[in-house]
Amino acid sequence: MSKQQLVVLGQSDATRENGETGQTDACCPGLLTAPLDEDQAAELAKVFKALGDPVRLRLLSMIASRAGGEVCVCDLTPAFDLSQPTISHHLKLLRQAGLIDCERRGTWVYYWLLPEMTDRLAGILTRPSVDATS
Amino acid sequence: MSKQQLVVLGQSDATRENGETGQTDACCPGLLTAPLDEDQAAELAKVFKALGDPVRLRLLSMIASRAGGEVCVCDLTPAFDLSQPTISHHLKLLRQAGLIDCERRGTWVYYWLLPEMTDRLAGILTRPSVDATS
Repeated sequence: MSKQQLVVLGQSDATRENGETGQTDACCPGLLTAPLDEDQAAELAKVFKALGDPVRLRLLSMIASRAGGEVCVCDLTPAFDLSQPTISHHLKLLRQAGLIDCERRGTWVYYWLLPEMTDRLAGILTRPSVDATS
Repeated sequence: MSKQQLVVLGQSDATRENGETGQTDACCPGLLTAPLDEDQAAELAKVFKALGDPVRLRLLSMIASRAGGEVCVCDLTPAFDLSQPTISHHLKLLRQAGLIDCERRGTWVYYWLLPEMTDRLAGILTRPSVDATS
């Protein structure tokens, strides 16, 4: 790659490229297809930040791997050397990020995955099909 | 979903489910298919943490959207109201997370995407095909 090619880098250039390869879904700014604007980046960063913790990742994987199901918080806490309030705090951050939802029933709170968000993340991290137009 | 189903939650159950649906690649623990162990979660959390910042997300998208290409740091900094050392620090965190790599040539450093890592993240965030065995 010559240095001259690099000079044309810019938002407009990337937008043009994106136009050529087809628009991304309105829901999903393409992280890999065009530069994110500040609002998109701020919104996405919140979700990735929620995933940027080992306990939260383990909680999410425990919840998500209950295919189509849900998990009682009482079944999550024994897997960790952490208090239930701490676990609940991590779950709250996952919920605020739109990755899970929950419902209280009697004593316990039940959690389930919101696959729309993980689908969305998977989508924006997936490379566009290489069409070699450039 | 009955509460009784929830009682069987556990690593062994999830492992069995995973066995039925076919193993995930050795490279990629399935975030959505089985509970992550502590080491997997710690490793993955580092990468998501690197993505959990709007500036880093914008930098990554600027680098990644240069389809197959690379970007001079001198073309990245003008997009931000941040000093070049700050930009370089964010780029270093993305590099430490295995998301990008770089090379110095003369005055400038050039960055490019390591698509193996974004592919891996996309993979672990992708739902397994629903086989409705449970």
